Order: sequence, then structure tokens, then C-alpha cells
Amino acid sequence: MDISDLTPELLPYLGQAAYFELGMFENLAQAIRISPDLDAKEGLSVVAGRALAKHQGLVAEVRRRGGEPAEVMAPFAPALDDFRAKTMGADWHELLLTCYLAGGLLDDFFIRLSDGLPGDVGPRIAHLLGQGAGTDVLVTHLKAAIDGNPGLGSHLALWGRRLVGDTMLVARSAIPAAAPPVDGTTATAPPTATTPGEARIEPVFTELVAAHTRRMDGLGLTA
Amino acid sequence: MDISDLTPELLPYLGQAAYFELGMFENLAQAIRISPDLDAKEGLSVVAGRALAKHQGLVAEVRRRGGEPAEVMAPFAPALDDFRAKTMGADWHELLLTCYLAGGLLDDFFIRLSDGLPGDVGPRIAHLLGQGAGTDVLVTHLKAAIDGNPGLGSHLALWGRRLVGDTMLVARSAIPAAAPPVDGTTATAPPTATTPGEARIEPVFTELVAAHTRRMDGLGLTA
Repeated sequence: MDISDLTPELLPYLGQAAYFELGMFENLAQAIRISPDLDAKEGLSVVAGRALAKHQGLVAEVRRRGGEPAEVMAPFAPALDDFRAKTMGADWHELLLTCYLAGGLLDDFFIRLSDGLPGDVGPRIAHLLGQGAGTDVLVTHLKAAIDGNPGLGSHLALWGRRLVGDTMLVARSAIPAAAPPVDGTTATAPPTATTPGEARIEPVFTELVAAHTRRMDGLGLTA
Repeated sequence: MDISDLTPELLPYLGQAAYFELGMFENLAQAIRISPDLDAKEGLSVVAGRALAKHQGLVAEVRRRGGEPAEVMAPFAPALDDFRAKTMGADWHELLLTCYLAGGLLDDFFIRLSDGLPGDVGPRIAHLLGQGAGTDVLVTHLKAAIDGNPGLGSHLALWGRRLVGDTMLVARSAIPAAAPPVDGTTATAPPTATTPGEARIEPVFTELVAAHTRRMDGLGLTA
């Protein structure tokens, strides 16, 4: 499925991805802060460092093109701040699951979109975002907690199912052509209309959800 | 002034320095969280990355010697957590000043102590901790705020003077031989007694305070 023509312009793409990774870093810093022990803190600091490296790599691409990172990220801040607030979770395990599932899904998504970027920047970003995110630490802590507590497992399964909706909305917002019509200019379209972009991106979203389901399965959670 | 024989054992040294840098990283993550704008967030993320790199470099030295980072750091966690709680500050500017002044002083201190470490680890750590910490970002934000608000300057001068005491206590705790007697076993010593270690480390502390004063001066604050 070639969706390269749906990839947004380079600077907005970089701005959204960079701000998303900064948010993941902030989530992980929060997870470090509320870690139950030093060993968890130490392991999570590695994951936080990887998210920060992704953010900084994307920011470097912005600068290379003469962009101002803060300006390029700014349009995406309100929606991504709102996403983070909604998906922060009520405790350490929910937050770890958010980092694992939303981080995994949106890294996959930004890698998929990078196909359509001009020049050699696409492969460079795919490499940057595809680097092992150190998330085995997240999986280890989550599995240990779930294995010892079936009630926690069903609670986290619910949280994971809720996360996927909010996370997919972030992905959808990255592709203007795939977003459902939301303003008056399209008011005359029949309510069931899908844009051509929306129809073409759908299989990509199906792939992303399938990978999400595999992550849930790997933790023993029902997606 | 050769204080190499006062340097603590290698693993405790690494544990204390590693946990201190992790705490600095957590302070910077908190500063990112409460940043007034995206530009500040972005600049601070670089400083946070440097603190994290220092932490991870020290942890790598622990692992190289077969140590468990969490175990090696654990004895220092209560005092350093207490130090962080006391020096976190009430707002963004106080927190930035803490990162700049306490970070600067204790990096200097751990570099000074690294002279006495065995083998080639000392120079390696001095290099790691001496790397530009990206603190020009902290200085830029603090100076901009102070220049525009003389009241903030005198408030932060007070905060800086208070910080130095708490920070020097952390340094002092790293050198058992230099710590003043605190328990019953030394109850028979005259109250004015200084240990030989304490007398010899004093000039080093004087140097650290002089560098602290230069940092305060650089910000236009009276130390």
C-alpha cells in the first residue's frame, strides 16, 4: 500500500513527530519520578534517553532545514498536550502501558509516513524511530505486575483498549487528507462520505491496530 | 592540594555520583514540565540529556565492575532525595537556579574527588562530568528573567545562598573522614575538634564556594 502521497509536508511532519517524542520523554520522566524502586528508575532512565534521542534527532532535521523547532512544533502542541493529559493514566502501570502502546503505535506510524518524505530524510528518520526503544524494560515491569495480579490484567486490558482510540486520533490528525470533514466547507457532502485519502489510509491504520493487538497479546492482555 | 587519599571507595563514589546525576535529570525533567514555552522546553531537553548521559556513564562504570547500579546507589538515596526535596524550589526560576548552582558545584566536586580513584577510571569520569553541561541555556533564561525584574534578582540571590549550604552538606557526606563527628563514639572529643580529614578537605570546599560565587556573579546575583 503506497501512501507516500498522503505524507504531510516535511516540516509539519517533523514538528508533530518531534513534539510527540518530547511528550513520550516527559511521560517516561514522570514514570521515573513515581517508580516504586531504584531498579525500575534506572531501567526507565534508559527508555527516557531513547525517547529524548528521537526527539533530538528530529529537531536536528528541523534545524538542518533552517526551521525553528519551537515554531515547527507549536501547531501540534495543543492536541498532543491534550492527548498526553488523557492518556497519562492514574498510576505507574497505566503510564507504563501508555508509553509502550502509544509509543509503539505512533513510532510505527511515523516510520510508515516517512516513506513519502523527499530526499534521503525518510530512511534516516525511519532508522532513528525504528531503533530499539528499550521498551523491553516496560514489558518486563508490566508482565511481572500482570502475572502476579489477574485483576490488574483486566484493568490494564481496558486501559489499553481505551488508549488505542486516542492514539489513532493522533495518527489520523497527521494526514489532513485522511481526516474526516469537520467544518462548514464540506457541509454539503453526504454524511457517510469518506475522502479518497481516508479510504486509502485505512489499510495502514488496520496494520497499526494489528501491531497494537500483538503488543497487547504479548502482555497477556485481551485487545 | 592533594586530597586523593580522602576519595571514597570506587563503588560508593560511583553510586553517589550516579544517583546525584539521576536526581539532576529528574529536576530538569520537572523544569521541562513547567516550562513557560516550547522554546524553553526544547533548550532544557538538551540539558536533561546531558545529565542523563552523565548518569548512564557512571552506571556503565558500576556495571563494568560487576556492581548492580540500584544496589550501589541505594545507600545514597535517602539523603539525596531529601536534598532534592529541599532544593526543588517553589517555581521554575528557583528550580533552574538549583540545576545550575548545585549541578555545577557537585560536578566540580566529583571531578575533584576523581583524582584519587584507582586505575584509569578517574580521568574517564573527570571527562564525563566535565563535558559542557549545556548550562548556557539555564544561564540565558535566568539572566533574561533577572534583568527584567530586580525583585526576582534579590529573591534568587537569597535562594542561591541557601542552596550552597545544602549542596555543601552533600559534598561533605561523600567524604566520611571529613564529616564532623555526629554520634556517641566521639562524644569525649572536645566540641571544637576537627578531624584531620576535615582540615585537609577545607581548602577544596573553599575552591568550590569560590566557583559558586563566580556563578552567582555571572548572573548578577550577590553571593
